[in-house]
Formats: sequence, C-alpha cells, structure tokens
Amino acid sequence: MKIEEIKIKDLHTDEFIKQQVEEISSVVGEGLAINALSGGVDSSVVTMIGYKALGDRLKTCFIDSGLMREGEPDHIASLFGDLGVNVEIIDAQNQFFEALKGKVDPEEKREAITQTFYAVVFAQLAKQSGAGYVFQGTNYTDIEETVAGIKRQHNIIEQLGINPEEQYGYKIIEPLIQLRKPAIRALAKTLGLPEELYNRPPFPGPGLAARVIGEVTQERVEIARKATKIVEDELCNLGAFQYLAILHEDRVTGIRDGKRDYGMQIEVRCWDSEDAITGSPTKLSYDVLNRLGERITTEVLGVVSVTYNITKKPPSTIETI
Amino acid sequence: MKIEEIKIKDLHTDEFIKQQVEEISSVVGEGLAINALSGGVDSSVVTMIGYKALGDRLKTCFIDSGLMREGEPDHIASLFGDLGVNVEIIDAQNQFFEALKGKVDPEEKREAITQTFYAVVFAQLAKQSGAGYVFQGTNYTDIEETVAGIKRQHNIIEQLGINPEEQYGYKIIEPLIQLRKPAIRALAKTLGLPEELYNRPPFPGPGLAARVIGEVTQERVEIARKATKIVEDELCNLGAFQYLAILHEDRVTGIRDGKRDYGMQIEVRCWDSEDAITGSPTKLSYDVLNRLGERITTEVLGVVSVTYNITKKPPSTIETI
Repeated sequence: MKIEEIKIKDLHTDEFIKQQVEEISSVVGEGLAINALSGGVDSSVVTMIGYKALGDRLKTCFIDSGLMREGEPDHIASLFGDLGVNVEIIDAQNQFFEALKGKVDPEEKREAITQTFYAVVFAQLAKQSGAGYVFQGTNYTDIEETVAGIKRQHNIIEQLGINPEEQYGYKIIEPLIQLRKPAIRALAKTLGLPEELYNRPPFPGPGLAARVIGEVTQERVEIARKATKIVEDELCNLGAFQYLAILHEDRVTGIRDGKRDYGMQIEVRCWDSEDAITGSPTKLSYDVLNRLGERITTEVLGVVSVTYNITKKPPSTIETI
Repeated sequence: MKIEEIKIKDLHTDEFIKQQVEEISSVVGEGLAINALSGGVDSSVVTMIGYKALGDRLKTCFIDSGLMREGEPDHIASLFGDLGVNVEIIDAQNQFFEALKGKVDPEEKREAITQTFYAVVFAQLAKQSGAGYVFQGTNYTDIEETVAGIKRQHNIIEQLGINPEEQYGYKIIEPLIQLRKPAIRALAKTLGLPEELYNRPPFPGPGLAARVIGEVTQERVEIARKATKIVEDELCNLGAFQYLAILHEDRVTGIRDGKRDYGMQIEVRCWDSEDAITGSPTKLSYDVLNRLGERITTEVLGVVSVTYNITKKPPSTIETI
C-alpha cells in the first residue's frame, strides 16, 4: 500500500488529532498499548495523541540507551509529568554499549541499536506490559529515505519486511506516517506541548551513536554529548532547521602548552532546510563560528580542532552516519 | 649554538643576500654543491642565492615524489629555466609510495618520507654529483617547532642529531635558518623571483602526504591534489597566509542520484597569520564557502562532504599532520 503524504498546507491539526484519537480508540478498544518516548518531536506527539486516546492504558517508556543528550531522560520525564503523562525511565545503557562494542561500520552500528532497542529492550517491556499495540513516530521522510536506500531508519520495522505481531507479539500503529517534520511540529503546538519539544533540532533515532564516527564507546559518546551541548547552546536561537556535533575518528595534530597534542576533531553542522530533503549550511557569523571553535576546544578535553560543514544536501546528508 | 632570529624589521635584503653569497663562495670555494628545489619560497630563495654564489657549480634537482601539486615539477623547472637556472627533475614516485605503503601514523609517514628523501634519493644524487655541500631551506619556524616537539620538520637533519658528513658524505648549509616566512618572501622579491613563487601559500615538506589522513596511496594523493587545486584557485586572491585541503580517512554518508553514497570528506583550512606561530581562520564569505563545497563535491569523484576549519592556532596547527 502506497503511503500518501499530507502536506502541511492541507493539514488541519485539530481535525487530524481528533481523527487519530478516534481511530486509535476504535482499534485498541479496551486493550493496552505501549510506546517509547525519546523526547524528539515525533515520539512526543505520538505520546500525547496516544495519551488522549487511551489515558493510563498507554504505558510510555523512556529507554535510556546512554546515547541521548545530557540529562535528557529525567528532563523529558519531568516535562511530560507536568502534562499528566507518567513516563517510566528504563536504564538500558549497558545493553546498548555491549551491542556496539567493536563495531565501526555505520550500518552495523544502526543494526546493533535497532536490534537492542526492538528485539531486546523494547520487546521485553512490551511483553511484560501485556500490551497488544505499539505506537511509533515514523514519519514520511523516514519512509522515503528508506525506500530510496539512503539510510535505514531504526523505527520502521514493517517497512523492512518484519512482521512485529509474529516476531514480537504486538501490532504497530504509526499515526505520523503521512507527515513531515513541519506538520508534526504544528501538531505539537496544537497539542499544547512545551515549545522546547517542538522547536529543538531533530535528534536521530540512534542518538549520539549517529554522531560518533568509528567505535561507539561510553567515553566517545560523552565527548560527542559535551560538544552537542555547546553547539545547541550557541545555535538554539538562530532559527536553524537542525544543528549538531560529530566526533571524528581521524586524529589531527594540535598544540597544547607549547607541545604537540595528537587530538580529536569535532565537526559542526547547522542546516537551513524546509523539509530535510534538501538543505544548505546556515550562514553563521564568524563571531559564532569562532566561539564554537574556542568553546569546544576549551571545554571538551582532548579536542584540538573544530570544523564547520559547508556542503549542501545533496550530496551531503543532514546527519553523518 | 643558539640560533638567533633576524626579524623582518632588521633585515636589509640586499645586504643579507650579498653577505650570504660571499660566505657561500668562501666556504665552498671551487667545490660543487647540490640542492633540492621544491618550488616553495624557502628552497626557491636558497636556489637563487646558491646560484648567485656558485653558478653552474650548484646542481639543482627537483625530486618528484608524487606528493606535489598538479603539474608542479615541469612548472617549477620552467620558471627557473627562465632565470637561467637549470633544474633536473628526478622521478622518485615509486620509491616514495613504496615507503609509505601501509603506514597510517603521521610520525611514521614523516619518517618514511625523510628517509626516502635524504637517505635514499637525495643521498644517491649527492654522491653521484660529487658535491661536498648541500643547501637546505630550513627556516627559523622549523627550528622552533622541532625544538618545542610540536612536529618534526623533514629538513633539519643536523637539529635531529644526525651528522650528514659522516652519514651521507656532505656538509649542510642553511642560509635561511635565522628567518621566518615574511622575511624570506622579502628576499624572494629582491632576488627577482616571479611573484607566484613567493606569494603562493607555503607547501609542507612532506607534500600532499601531510594532507592525507591515514594511508598515503597514489589514488588518495590524487584526490587531495585535485581538492588542493580547487582550494588554491578559489582562495589565491584573498591575501590569506595559507590555504589547503585535507583528505580525511573517516567516511561519511552522502547521497548521489537519490541513493546512499558512503563517501569521502575534504577539510579546507585557510589561515590569517603573520608568522605561522599563531593563526585564525580567514573570514571567508559564504559565497566562497558554498562554491568550495560545490566545486569539490562535483569535481572530485567520491567526495560527498566538505568542511571548513574554525579553530585558531593554538590549539590547532596550520597543517593537519
């Protein structure tokens, strides 16, 4: 079945939400559902729509993979707590880092995260919860990029030919599958989600693992996390579509205290884009670029070099992996 | 013996040249000398001073390591031919790539180039020529950085504790050892060298090998060479101190013809600096940055991503390796 995009100009957010809530109520009936909230706009909107339809019959988990932004699990749980939604934090850090050990190929890393997320951690949660339905925040761009073979999104189990009911014992509901990011942000606003949740830059499914070139260890993720925090601090008020920090595996020569220091490099990307299909580097001022270079090399131990990506998408992609 | 810097404000170029010519004449007497010309300002100035002192008793070679700019050997030989200086081109590409095979550590790569240059190719040339003296373009910054342990310059045999007379059978003369780049450029002008030789950006001793992260193969050098040509084309008229292209070893995801292309990344650096001791990224306009991104990803096959370095020196260095 071909999925048709609903363009933002054709979207009536109130109606769309009402329709989704009715559909979910009718499909799930008196059953239980479960979903994983990441704090991104997609899963946040799905959580609220699901909560509207099912109330406490929706169990919402935040799976702490160890690959998220600094302080993210508690922060997101607290934001949703304020909206009446109870979020359970699941510490699964060891399972993810164990699965990622020794892997350097981007597709193998994605696969390890997908498997750990769905087949290990989430499957177990779903089973324990007794839920027959799982909500996912899959959007139209995910489908399109997967079909095109550009990258494999982690959350489109069915598109990949897996039957979740046979394999995991639940059905998948994807309320956002016809929408792109701007439309999903409009829903977030209508749903009364705090602005920070829909105005923050998109964060990839595999989290910081998508921003660490080479092996993903706890130490290397911590470096990407610190750099990410600085980049988000400095760029959050500029209206860019997305901004991120990437830890390279390549080492470069630097100088510390007058001595050679063979150190790490962080790449910053900041995108102007309407729809994530095409994009251009934001024209950041040199005040901002210099501050990024200085803060990252000063505040993140071991980093001696910072670059800014100047390629358009295509031929680049928004994220690096 | 401590080497004292002669600052540009204290340098009288005519006098300095006259004095060097006299000293060389008196030291070499009726003997023969040899030098390797790379086309950089240092070795170009040394060639002209040596030629003034010794005429045809100085044999000048251009060692084609396969690591130079596009078309460089013929171009440089022709420029010096116009000045009356005969330059012999020595094809040593196979020897260099053989020595570099499988090496990824920057210091090991430098060492392989140093050894191939001095102990293999140049030592043999010097021996065949019967020269008792070798001119080198070592400058004050080279000495300083080597002493500080930041990087090992390839051309400072004596500073590294090697006795060239015992080991290779010749003495080394370094006429520029008290000068930094701006002073050397002033000499170039006084000597009547074509402007392109002293106004082009410095090129590192190990050539493009210093701009290829990871293994240095003929194919990878060719990619760095093409990117270098584009960067020099685009940036040569902006008055920057130095500008260069670096081929990374890390691969990043890109899109070509709507399909995923796991491709290469080129890093561009462009420096404002007085003396190479400290430096800042040149504030290139986004017109220029976008053109660099587009030209490199279009004209250099396999490159999907281009970055611009935004770090100051220190903690960065001018070159990457």
